[in-house]
Amino acid sequence: MALIVQKFGGTSVANTDNIKNVARRVKSEVEKGNQVVVVVSAMSGTTDQLIKWVNAVSSLNTKEEEAEHDVVVSSGEQVTSGLLALALRAIDVPAISMQAWQLPFYSDDMFRKARIEDIETGALTDALNKGLVVVVPGFQGITRSKRVTTLGRGGSDTSGVALAAALKAERCDIYTDVEGVYTSDPRVVTKARKLRKIAYEEMMEMASLGAKVLQLRSVEMAMKHKVRVQVLSSFSDKPGTLLVDEEEVMERRLITGVTYSRGEAQVTVTGIPDKPGIAAEIFGPLADAEINVDMIVQNISEASGNEKFTDMTFTVGKTDLDKALSSLKALKDKLKYRELITNDQVAKVSVVGVGMRSHAGLAQKMFKTLAEKGINIHVISTSEIKISVLISEEYLELALRALHTAYGLDEK
Amino acid sequence: MALIVQKFGGTSVANTDNIKNVARRVKSEVEKGNQVVVVVSAMSGTTDQLIKWVNAVSSLNTKEEEAEHDVVVSSGEQVTSGLLALALRAIDVPAISMQAWQLPFYSDDMFRKARIEDIETGALTDALNKGLVVVVPGFQGITRSKRVTTLGRGGSDTSGVALAAALKAERCDIYTDVEGVYTSDPRVVTKARKLRKIAYEEMMEMASLGAKVLQLRSVEMAMKHKVRVQVLSSFSDKPGTLLVDEEEVMERRLITGVTYSRGEAQVTVTGIPDKPGIAAEIFGPLADAEINVDMIVQNISEASGNEKFTDMTFTVGKTDLDKALSSLKALKDKLKYRELITNDQVAKVSVVGVGMRSHAGLAQKMFKTLAEKGINIHVISTSEIKISVLISEEYLELALRALHTAYGLDEK
Repeated sequence: MALIVQKFGGTSVANTDNIKNVARRVKSEVEKGNQVVVVVSAMSGTTDQLIKWVNAVSSLNTKEEEAEHDVVVSSGEQVTSGLLALALRAIDVPAISMQAWQLPFYSDDMFRKARIEDIETGALTDALNKGLVVVVPGFQGITRSKRVTTLGRGGSDTSGVALAAALKAERCDIYTDVEGVYTSDPRVVTKARKLRKIAYEEMMEMASLGAKVLQLRSVEMAMKHKVRVQVLSSFSDKPGTLLVDEEEVMERRLITGVTYSRGEAQVTVTGIPDKPGIAAEIFGPLADAEINVDMIVQNISEASGNEKFTDMTFTVGKTDLDKALSSLKALKDKLKYRELITNDQVAKVSVVGVGMRSHAGLAQKMFKTLAEKGINIHVISTSEIKISVLISEEYLELALRALHTAYGLDEK
Repeated sequence: MALIVQKFGGTSVANTDNIKNVARRVKSEVEKGNQVVVVVSAMSGTTDQLIKWVNAVSSLNTKEEEAEHDVVVSSGEQVTSGLLALALRAIDVPAISMQAWQLPFYSDDMFRKARIEDIETGALTDALNKGLVVVVPGFQGITRSKRVTTLGRGGSDTSGVALAAALKAERCDIYTDVEGVYTSDPRVVTKARKLRKIAYEEMMEMASLGAKVLQLRSVEMAMKHKVRVQVLSSFSDKPGTLLVDEEEVMERRLITGVTYSRGEAQVTVTGIPDKPGIAAEIFGPLADAEINVDMIVQNISEASGNEKFTDMTFTVGKTDLDKALSSLKALKDKLKYRELITNDQVAKVSVVGVGMRSHAGLAQKMFKTLAEKGINIHVISTSEIKISVLISEEYLELALRALHTAYGLDEK
């Protein structure tokens, strides 16, 4: 008898018919002889409605206000947990809902984006041992001083993985509206293949780079606690994608996927004095303004008279672009730059794979492939298991398909 | 500095604008220097939506299922409590929401219609002493084994009165969509007057007889714990009606109000043997079927040969009529009655007043007034402080107005 955690997202529990469908899936897991803990999101749309009400009465300026936000918004998952317990009992599966305060499921007190601290499993295990399926609302916790918290958008994935870790579950199945993790976005790259397995590290890069299948924090947590996470669709019966340790990825592929993000904008600061500390002078104020800078490249310097000058190019989130420009304009006198050039018609394309650790030449293949298609690279950044390039957005689909083919990822 | 409990019903918190309006009312109480605990219902419509979802997935056959019903349905009040705390903070009134589990607010485990057992006031008093307004969701409690309960429809009134009793509050103000308790239904009797004060016992009769201002249980609880309850409108600034001890009703009126109910149906069982135990034979099975019988009248018997026969007339709730008839038909062989006659075009009219305890002739005035208008009385029942008659529904409005005038209740 194994213990399985199943997590169902908002579209999987969008209405009462879908909830009944979820109950049947849970039942089939129970009928295999497994103990099951189910983590549920709010019915899709519910959380948005609740947030709308909150915004109508408050601008959430203080921590106390954020705490009340969490009281309101966490109610969506509470509703689903009760409804699913009922739907299970209606098909003769004994089930009970347990809210965060009933476990308890502790988090810190960073309301609206709380981090899980500790899950007491006593009451939960007792219920499982009585033969009950336990339905736990995702996304929510309580502080040690008994205030309700929420874990931030997508926090239910993290709840599921954290429960699986705390219970030392055999597996955490995350049901969503896609069938798993693909080598690239199937809407763009028609030859994209579903991956049977993917290493945690790869999934981290895929998640942070825009493959919105799993919340990044849940992948981090899975990696940290070695939780075997399966991503699969609640609307089909096909096997999904399993997140595992690097060694367990049987298929000895070099590159796992080609992913992208349209969310970034490029900023170039030209004609700045090329002197020690200039980077800190630019990026310090941006960090102070809580603007996340992603890719950075500094041109080689050119001399002009006695002085040397350079250009600095970097990317920020598109939504932060205006804020970044204000910061930089305020620095005009101090930095003495020539001009600010921005471009928000850009996209970031990345190839990801643990094979990069041991194989050279993988970056070269990316540059060559893009060059052959006449695609200019604006900025390059690399990590141990990924290479990212910034290109003009209009070439995005072309680049994705070319790279997918070049790295041998196309479906046979 | 006094401690006031304010309770706001569903229409008072129907939307975010109304919630802001409630926040202003709470603020004005705080500005008088009072400590305030606020009890809120769900936003109107919310509870119905939640119940609809529950019914879509479950037929609630077991106690465990009723417990899950309560998990789902109690979320409506949770949402309002958080929203009101936010709306209060937005106008600079420090406030905090506290759910039943956070107090705790204990009830028995009769899910869906739980009875309040004990309210721990420690955490609540601490918060009040920190200068916070505490917003508590009405309608909900928890059992000693930490399961969520709900108190039944209208349970929020009872929550408010129970909190006022536990905290020994100066007053419990129940805000609703009417301006108080009237001598009769103002929609029918245009000369009806708002009562400044009413005795608990009178309010009990008024509540149970159809003046749907306050839930009966809340009045019982107020009477038991001597809580001064004020009923008033959240949409006006006029004073409401205060529920007090009988001795405190200053105005020495005899009759307080004329009230009515359309919810009953009349059943007559004719030609039953007039022998000891016949009433038990009829009403036992009805009680077993959980059918509430209200008024009962037994005709004088008539002889036929060696045997004596009688008719029995009584009323049941209209919604129970079919069930009652099935029960009685099943008894046909045993009771040997002649026939069953039913009439659901009836209404019950009652006059209520503590003055009846000490004054004779008040019933006679009722019979005379109705006779003068040519209104036939089907059944009569009385208690210490009320007289009720069953009449044809078509005469209802006429009867109410005539009695209101006859007892000197008309507005001057």
